[in-house]
Formats: sequence, structure tokens, C-alpha cells
Amino acid sequence: METFFNPGAVAVVGASPQNLGGFVVQNLLSGFSGGIYPVNPNYTELEGIACYSFVTEIPDPVDLAVVLVPARAVPSVLEACAQKGIYRVIIESAGFSESGREGRVLQEKCTAIAKDAGIRIWGPNCMGIVDVQRHAYFTFMNPEVREELLAGRISLIVQSGMMSAIFLAELGRRGIGVAKACSIGNRADVDECDIIEYLQTDPDTDVIALYLESIPRGRRFARLAEASAKPVVLLKGGESRAGAQAAVSHTYSLSGDSRLLHSVLDFTGVIRSESVFQMMDMANALAEIPCIHPACRAAILTLSGGAGILACDALEKSGAAIAELSEQTRQAAAEVFPPWMPVFNPVDLFPAVALKGRKAAFHGAFKAVIADPDTDVLVIHFVAGLEGASPDLFALKQQAEENGKILVFWLMGRQEGSRQFREDARNAGVLVYEDVTRLAECLSAAARFSAHRHQVQDRPSAPETENSGPEVCLDSPAAEGTWDEYETKQLLGKYDIPVTAETLVQTADAAWAWAQEKGTPVVLKGLVPEKGHKTEYGLVRLSISDRPGLASAFADLSGQVGQQGRILIQKQVPVDYELIAGFMRDAQFGPCVMFGLGGILAELEPDVVFDLAPLDHDRAVQMLRSLRNRRLLQGFRGMPPLDETSAADILVRLGRLGTADSRISQIDINPLAVSAGKPVAVDANIVFSPEPGISG
Amino acid sequence: METFFNPGAVAVVGASPQNLGGFVVQNLLSGFSGGIYPVNPNYTELEGIACYSFVTEIPDPVDLAVVLVPARAVPSVLEACAQKGIYRVIIESAGFSESGREGRVLQEKCTAIAKDAGIRIWGPNCMGIVDVQRHAYFTFMNPEVREELLAGRISLIVQSGMMSAIFLAELGRRGIGVAKACSIGNRADVDECDIIEYLQTDPDTDVIALYLESIPRGRRFARLAEASAKPVVLLKGGESRAGAQAAVSHTYSLSGDSRLLHSVLDFTGVIRSESVFQMMDMANALAEIPCIHPACRAAILTLSGGAGILACDALEKSGAAIAELSEQTRQAAAEVFPPWMPVFNPVDLFPAVALKGRKAAFHGAFKAVIADPDTDVLVIHFVAGLEGASPDLFALKQQAEENGKILVFWLMGRQEGSRQFREDARNAGVLVYEDVTRLAECLSAAARFSAHRHQVQDRPSAPETENSGPEVCLDSPAAEGTWDEYETKQLLGKYDIPVTAETLVQTADAAWAWAQEKGTPVVLKGLVPEKGHKTEYGLVRLSISDRPGLASAFADLSGQVGQQGRILIQKQVPVDYELIAGFMRDAQFGPCVMFGLGGILAELEPDVVFDLAPLDHDRAVQMLRSLRNRRLLQGFRGMPPLDETSAADILVRLGRLGTADSRISQIDINPLAVSAGKPVAVDANIVFSPEPGISG
Repeated sequence: METFFNPGAVAVVGASPQNLGGFVVQNLLSGFSGGIYPVNPNYTELEGIACYSFVTEIPDPVDLAVVLVPARAVPSVLEACAQKGIYRVIIESAGFSESGREGRVLQEKCTAIAKDAGIRIWGPNCMGIVDVQRHAYFTFMNPEVREELLAGRISLIVQSGMMSAIFLAELGRRGIGVAKACSIGNRADVDECDIIEYLQTDPDTDVIALYLESIPRGRRFARLAEASAKPVVLLKGGESRAGAQAAVSHTYSLSGDSRLLHSVLDFTGVIRSESVFQMMDMANALAEIPCIHPACRAAILTLSGGAGILACDALEKSGAAIAELSEQTRQAAAEVFPPWMPVFNPVDLFPAVALKGRKAAFHGAFKAVIADPDTDVLVIHFVAGLEGASPDLFALKQQAEENGKILVFWLMGRQEGSRQFREDARNAGVLVYEDVTRLAECLSAAARFSAHRHQVQDRPSAPETENSGPEVCLDSPAAEGTWDEYETKQLLGKYDIPVTAETLVQTADAAWAWAQEKGTPVVLKGLVPEKGHKTEYGLVRLSISDRPGLASAFADLSGQVGQQGRILIQKQVPVDYELIAGFMRDAQFGPCVMFGLGGILAELEPDVVFDLAPLDHDRAVQMLRSLRNRRLLQGFRGMPPLDETSAADILVRLGRLGTADSRISQIDINPLAVSAGKPVAVDANIVFSPEPGISG
Repeated sequence: METFFNPGAVAVVGASPQNLGGFVVQNLLSGFSGGIYPVNPNYTELEGIACYSFVTEIPDPVDLAVVLVPARAVPSVLEACAQKGIYRVIIESAGFSESGREGRVLQEKCTAIAKDAGIRIWGPNCMGIVDVQRHAYFTFMNPEVREELLAGRISLIVQSGMMSAIFLAELGRRGIGVAKACSIGNRADVDECDIIEYLQTDPDTDVIALYLESIPRGRRFARLAEASAKPVVLLKGGESRAGAQAAVSHTYSLSGDSRLLHSVLDFTGVIRSESVFQMMDMANALAEIPCIHPACRAAILTLSGGAGILACDALEKSGAAIAELSEQTRQAAAEVFPPWMPVFNPVDLFPAVALKGRKAAFHGAFKAVIADPDTDVLVIHFVAGLEGASPDLFALKQQAEENGKILVFWLMGRQEGSRQFREDARNAGVLVYEDVTRLAECLSAAARFSAHRHQVQDRPSAPETENSGPEVCLDSPAAEGTWDEYETKQLLGKYDIPVTAETLVQTADAAWAWAQEKGTPVVLKGLVPEKGHKTEYGLVRLSISDRPGLASAFADLSGQVGQQGRILIQKQVPVDYELIAGFMRDAQFGPCVMFGLGGILAELEPDVVFDLAPLDHDRAVQMLRSLRNRRLLQGFRGMPPLDETSAADILVRLGRLGTADSRISQIDINPLAVSAGKPVAVDANIVFSPEPGISG
């Protein structure tokens, strides 16, 4: 990757005096210190430097080619690059897999040529590389945008070409600095994972921000993100039904299950954002706040009681805490307040200003609160043009740093004062937000990342392999189709997953004998191939306690299931509540384990989490603790708490079973009933795929 | 109210050459055409006009006094106003109920004086009135803010004084026009309800936007909002735990249950916003979009596939629909697209631009889509500075109007071009958003309001009275404390609310006789005063089907309940799922009926709705249909749908019962079990308050 970012010499294939080919040369000339070789048979000179008809004619060694010729001409350019010994090629031309069948064929042809020649391709259909720190622009981006860019510590990876230019324009407009911007397009070869890996050691990058419409190598992405010491902020397009459809057609990439994606990525510490500006603001906040106490206890200073209330609302909603000021802090602050006004957080400065004047009131309160031991962040609401002169931001920032506190401003007010304030804040390295909702979201993102880094140090990383070792022994039946409850639970039992006591019975007498031995009440189920939803087919009889009841249920079910069916008797367990657990293979993330709440309401509002399989006990415990309604498992309403070890073991074993045989495409345990804190599989099935499972 | 807004002459009590008293006079002089009379014993002239020592010295009639003297001097000013015959007074001074006990006493004194004299008070602790359309500024607001204001169609009502100035500064900065801004402060007399009522007939106002921290007259507010032909947008502060605490101290106002408030207001069509800028943007959108098809079917035009995807994500998330383009539209648009590119929504113009050039591609697609019969709104993504010249917004707007479509821009890109674009858009009356999330939220708000207006025409309005007429006959026991299940259900039965078949039994034999008559299984319950949560006390025995079982359960429970307890036998109903229903009195909204899902998961993630009691059948049906998980009631998973008429009747009767006796403070039916679609009260209790219930 290093050669893509720091080549010694660059050829521009498709250079021209104007248009995009001209922009690339102009961009290169603006700051790149290596050799620049325009290539275009129609010119002998461009922008005052020699232009060559073919790359093979360039007299000097070249490391990187930036290609802008029409798509159909790209294969021959790649062949020429191979001949010339150029092994890094950024194809910026469009007209490949994003543009119908012909384009897909063309892209495959290019990939094949590159692979044979040992060339790594970046793109096609992309805007290439913008390195603001080093003034290296390998891109057809409009040179005017370049002038508006600020150098900073955030590196961008953007799938969509046009979005890359838009992001840069918007970041420039908002005064947010950029290190590198990488537009990766169709990802014929180089993808976001390669670049994330490279940026880990890039000294110019503190935060990695991505816009992606799919994550084809989801497993690798998850592993890299989880291990990343630099925050990874992701805006994922195609989260809605219509958006996902459009994404498929936009880049011809498969999209996976977005609920699964969210859950898996949340475990990796990726900060997910939901809009372009939220992503930019979060990345900017993470660049400025490398570390914060995960509780994110905020104190608020304001001249407007209403603003203090709204700040509380926004902070609490985002998961931050409103700091309880210590007695010492309250006493210290009380010196600038009238006696009738008890000082509490949010600190409404209005009465203090009336008493002591703006300056003394603000500084008295600031000095007291910034020293508070149980406060992590100080949020100051300032109204430009309505509160007199701006405070000395350098001095405030220094005091905040001395006290180990984060300082953030919520800035409102008049146009003129705001602009100056923002500039001062940028110079002082102080974060400023117009919208307190965004402020709160950004603080909370920083706190989440800090918590993740803290936690990840004590935890094994996401699994590298998709295979858990020895193949499972599948004696019978054949590993195909969907196994019924009995067969599935036999297999689960071999993996030490607790299942209900049960057996197949041929006669009502045998059933009654079993019931007497094991104890009543029992359940009788009719198993029929292709009728998995037994309850809906009326194939389940619950709460059977006596012989006549059992006999009549047996007779009924026998009639219903017919020749092909079987009758299963099982001990009925008292159920406190129902969970679900499962295994599946995702198009992007490969084998995953699922865990969630069961029952009818959970079907309406699913509360499920996913992590990569196989997984170890600690990760399984983390899954259990990540449900939205985890309180249910913790001893809710007088019920005993869930036996966490048993439940985690089930998830670990499910992952091991599922990954032991690539023909297993899905396992569902539904319900996994909890009885006096112990989970047990009450119904389950396993699905085998005709081909080996998809993996990401 | 008219005199507050359009007085013939205004006295400024506490006028001065500078500071706030000076600002009021300057603001008045800037545009108010009536008489202006500064009052301050220290001056004989201010800003070139005569200044009086006391209001009583003013030689001419005066309609309105604006008061800025220190709080302690306000009572004597009110007395002087009474003497002079000034019956409208805006008290802008602070230092009243917001500032401790002394201030509260002072405010009560002022209210008493005003009441005796027939004076209506606006404030205290407020910024008064800003009428941008008529240049009438009865406020100490900094005159510089005045210069930045744009006249528009939105009127603001703001509880907090400082927030009022901030809102105006921010609206000015964002180019959003204002009609009137009313800062109401402590609301000693005039409140938001009075002003909403006035603004209904104000020809300058199209939209009413409010910032409130509490709604003490919630019932009246709800009634006015529901009947309002003008959209009402509300930002409610104090929604979080910490925010609510701060709100209580900020304005010393009681806050109610915010879940109840959300639910009640949603039925009234109030558009709730969650942040300052969202509120402004929503108000602005509602001013521009008086009516839109409730489905809000959006078509998207963009040069960036990625932007199209993100627009879909944002629109779908906000509840808008992504339009399916008609075959005719697709064919018409196909004329500018390459043959390999099927035209669908979002319309990615990039291939068309490559083929036909920007202008032809855009106009070809625009013309096709704007005529699409199944599209309500056209969202155009435009990147300033990267897409060449801006389109002719006047012409596009005209075409949109001719086709009955809403036109909205998602504007990104470079600073310079954006500014010009915004100005052009403002002139053309075209809505522009930087953030597509906000764009989607605003469209969705407009669609919700249109749907509400449509619906409200066929619906009886929210109830005016809190009383449903004849007092309920409470024979026994006494109307105090908490009634047990049996007594409560007897009363529910009198109101024709279905309850389980049940009776009190003295002996096991009597119980068995009852069970044989009514059928098994039965439930035995021990009723003990003060042990309402019977299940948690082990006082419920389910599924009793035989005599020995009943006998032993009876013996057990008899021992547990002791002398004071009673034993209740009831028929056990098979339960498909559980609901809850109830009645309560809210501090802001008075008597309300509650309805929601029951069961353990619903305790973790409540899904409940509230409406004002008493309520009629139609409103009750609307409650049933407003649950988040309403699918459960509609025949989910093969279960029969809920009998809507029966369920609605229960809510109507609950409301009638609760409001029939002001001593009833609460009724809980939990669970209201649903068995084969029929709801029946399985457990219930009623709570009487020592004093008549609070009402809002």
C-alpha cells in the first residue's frame, strides 16, 4: 500500500489540457514532489512538462499510474503498465461493474490481467487519493476544492466517487481538517480493509472515517476495526429497504442483514453514524478527544436556564451523564451566586451575572466546576453577540487540560460573532457545536470508543478463522435439507447444549410408560417433514398429565402426521421466559451466532445480537449483556437471574457446531426456554445448504 | 389579547438612556406608530421624547405598559397602572417566582393587585413581544438583533426569556422569517393558550412554534392545538430526568409524565420536535408546505448514487415513502439515459450526464419525474460548486406547482455557491436543507400535519369537560384507599366492562360447587388488604381442575391470608396475549385513559398510549390503533384480531367511570387478557385519593 500513497513517480494515463485529465495533472503539480509523467498520444507537452504517447515510452522508472482513459481502453493500459513495470494502478475511469453487464465483464478482464502481472488495482470508478498533509493529489477532483481543504488528522475512505468530492468540499466548508481521502470505487482489488490496515501505522492519521454501501470482506473489516487503536467511524449507506435496493444497483454489491451488521460492528467498537454531517462531527470529536471517562459526566454552564434544560435533555438521551457537583464545587461556585440560589448542575449563570457581572460570574463558576472531581466534561453554552465579548478560549482550554477535563462549547447567536468564535476555537483546539444534540452525540461517541479501548485490552480478539476444527460427527440422517426437532436436538446434545428430556414413541402405552418414568406434565409433538412450525399446524399438545389425556393426544397426532411422521414425547418444563439462539452465515460476515429474546412481543420488536462465530466464552457473555432488555436476564420482577455461564456456553457451542461443518447453513433454537434461571432448548432445527456455506 | 399586540399607546415604566430600559424605547421608536411614553422620575426626556415621573402623570390615554423596574417596585407600578386605567401590562423584570420564596410571594402579590384591578399581566420574567411584520417591538431585546430579523409567517411562543432572544438571533442567521415572537416568562396570567387562541385569527401567522418547559393548562392546550388549522410545532424542554429537575427549578413549574404528554399531544396533531433547529426547520417547512399527500411519496434526483442511497435511508426512516415511478415516467426519463441503465427511483443522473450533458440530462429527468402521478415530492440533490451553474429555481418551482408537487433541495458543496443558492431558493420559495435527515424529518412533519387535518374533520374534538355526568353509585365499600380485585371488578361490571366470572368463597366445598357449575380450570386468589401484587406474594393458584387440587389450594391460601383476607375463585380464561388499560389524573392534563400492551416484555419496553378522559368511541378506537406494536392486535401469527369495538368500549367506560367521581385517582386493569379476540379484565384495582383529584 505504501507505494499507492508515496510513489516516487506517477504516470497520468489519459492526461489532457482540460477536463478531468487536466485536473489530475494540475493537482499533481500543486504539491507532489516526485516525477510526473502525463501520457496521451495527442500531446507532446502538458502544463509545461513532457507528455508521452504510451507508458512504455516513459524513460524513467514509474511506481504508480493514474488512469483516466475510457473504460474499454483500460485493459491495454494495464498490459502496458505490466510491460513498463508499474505495479500500482489507480483506475479512476467509470464504466465498469457499476454500469451493466458489459462493464462487469470488462472489470473482470482488468482484474485478470492485473492478477497475472502482479499489479494491484485501486478502483475503478473512483476519485483516487487526496493526501492533504503531504499535498499529494492523485485525483481528478476539481482543483478549486483543493484550495479549501484544511490539513488535519482524519482520514476518509469513501466508496462512492462523487461522495468523496462532496465530503471534502463539506469538510472544508465546516473547517474540519483532513489527512488522506481515499475514494475506492468498485473495489476490484484494493478495498477498505487494505486501507484501514495501512492507516493504522500512518503517522498523519488519528481517526478513520468511512462511507460504505457494503462490506464484502466483513470478517476482516470487523477484525481490523476491533483491533484498531484509532477510532473508526462508519456511515453505512443502504440501510433502508429502498436504499439497499439502490445500493445493489449503484455498485452491484450484495448487501447483508443490516441488523446483523450493526450488532457485529458494535462489538468491534466501530462508531456508527447515521448521516453525513454526524459522521464528520463524530470523526472530528474523536480526533480531539482521544480519551474520556466512559460515564461522560457533563457539567453545563449557561446564561439561559432553558438552554441548560435542553442540554440535559440532549446529553441524557445520548447516554452521557449529568454530573452531580461535589459539595466543594457548589460552595466554591456559591461565591458568585445570590444566597437564594442553590448551585446545581446545569449551572444557570443568570442570577450570578445579575449579582457580580458577566466576567466575574463566569470565571467564578468556571473555576469551581472545572476542578470538580466527578466531572469529565464541561459544556459551555455561549450566545455570540448577546453575551458580550467571547471568553479567552486559549486560557479556558489550558485550565481544562490542567484539570484533565474536556471542554466543549454549544455556540448559538448572531452570525458575525459566531464566525470569529469558531475561528478562535479552531485555533485553540476547542470543540464547538451549533446543535446540542450533535454535541451530545459526539461526546457519547468519544465515551463509547474510550470504553471499547479499555475493554478490548482484556479480551480475545474477533476470530480469524471460520472453522472451529474437527468436523462434527453427523452419523444420521444425511447432512441435507432441514432436520426435524428430534434429530437436531440429538446433535445439540452431543455438543452439550441442554435440551428437553424426550424420546420418539411408537405407541400410546410406550408414551405413558416414559411419562411415568420421567414425570408429568409432558408434551406430545407430531414431527412431519416440511412442517417445521408445529404449533401453527396444531401438532403440539401441552400439559398432558394423565393416561387418558395422553392416549387421546397420541391418537389425534398419529392421525395428523400420517405415515411419514413421527411422535415425540418430551418433559414439559415450566417457563419463566423465552429466549432464542441461533447460528447463520451472513453474506458479508460469514458464520455468526445469534442470541435474543423470544416470545410474541420480541417477534414484533426484535431484541437480538449477533457476533462472529466461532466465539469464546467472554464474547458470548458480552452478547448476553448487550441485549436492549438485558434487565430481564438479571433477575427481573423477582425471577432468578439467568445462569450466565450456561447461557454463554450454549452460544459458544452453537458457534463451534455451526463452524465445524461448512454444510450447516443455519441453526435455530426457538424457544430457548429459561426455567429457574437455566436455559434449555425446547424446540430447534438445523438447515444444511446444498453447497458449502457462503462466507464473507 | 388584541390590546397587547396592537395598543394605541405604550408606557415604558423603567425607561432609561441605556441598558435594557433604553433598548425598549429604542425598539419602540424603530417602528411603532402609536404613542410612546417613557416613565422614569430621573429624566424629563429620553431619546428626544418627553419622559414622565409616574404613569399617572401621562396626559394621554395609554393601553399598554411595559415594565422594567426592579421586581420589588412592580406592585406599586401595577397600582399606578390601575389608577391610570392601563389594563394590559407586560412585566419584563425578573426576580419573581423563578427566584426563590420571596420572589414567589411578590409574584402572588402582583397577581392579586392585577386581578382586583382587572389588569391582565404578561410575564413577569420575560422578553415581551416582537412583531416583525408590523415593526412593533415591546421588548428589551438587543436592538441589533432586530436588524437581522426577516419578516415571515411563523409566530413563536417562548417560555424562557433568554431563549426567546436566542431563537430570534438563530432564525435571522438561518434566513427563516418570523411574524410574532411572544416571550411569556413565568405566566402569572397570560399563557401559551391565550396566545395560541389569538394567533388562530392573526392574518400574519401561518405556523405556531413553541418552546415550553411545562404545560400547566394541558387540557386547554390540547383542545386548542387539536382544533388549530395552523400547524403547532412544540419543542418541550425537561424531557430527561435531569432536564425535568432543572425545569422545575428554572420556572418553578410542575412537570407531568412526559410519556403521557407525548401521547396526548400526538393525538392532537401537535408536531413535536426534539431540538432547537429541528423545531425551526419544521416550522419553516410547515409554513411552505400547507398540504401534502400523507404518504409523502418522494422521488429523488441526484448526480451521486451514494447521495441517492442516503436520501432513501433518511426518507424511509422518517416515515416517507420512496415513490415507485410509473412506466410512463420511466419511459420519458429513459430518453436521456444510456440503454444499459434502467431508470428507477432514486434517479442517478450520472450516466445521463455522461451521455447528454448536465443540462439536458437534468431537465429531461426533471420533466419526466415532476409529472409522475404517484409522486408527491421531488427531492433534488445539488452540489454547489461541483455541478456547474445552479438551476433556475423559479422555473423549477413553477413547474412543480403546475404539477401539484412539492420541490425540495438537498444542498451540499462549496461555501460560495451554497450561499447564493440559498438566497435564490428563499426568493423562489423553495425549501433547501444541508442535511438530508432534517429534510426527511421536515417532509414527514408536513405529511403528519396534513394527515391530522384530514382526520380531525371527521372526528369529535378533545373533551372540554373533565366530568362525565352522573356520579357513580359507590354503595360499598367506602370510597377511600385501594379497593381489592373483587370490589374493583364488581364496580367495573356495573360499567359493563367485561370481567372474569368469579365469586368470594368461604369454604373449599363452596368453591368446588362453584367450579363444577362454571367449569374448570379455575383460579384461586387470596385477597389481603395492602397486598395488591398477589402473584409476588404467592397468593394466586392457577389451573385448578380437580377437587383435591382445589381443596389443598384453598387450605393453603386460607392459612396465608389469615383473618383479614378473603378467598376469590374465578374461571381461568385461556390467554392469547395480555393488554393493560387504566385511568389516571395527570398534573398537566387532568383525567386520562391509558391503554397498552401487557406482559413481561412490555414492562421492559412500555408500549402505551394516553388520551384525555372522558373520551368517545372513535377516539378510543384511535388509541387502539396507535400502539407501536398494533400488529399484535390485528391478527398476528394466526391469532384472531382483537374485537376492536369491545376493547374501545372498555376504554370509553373506564373514562366515564373515572371522571364520574373526582375521588377516583386511578384505575388499573392489568392484565386485560385477550382470549380469542375478546378482552376481559383478569385483575384490577381502583385507588381513591383523600382529596378530589388534581386536574390540569
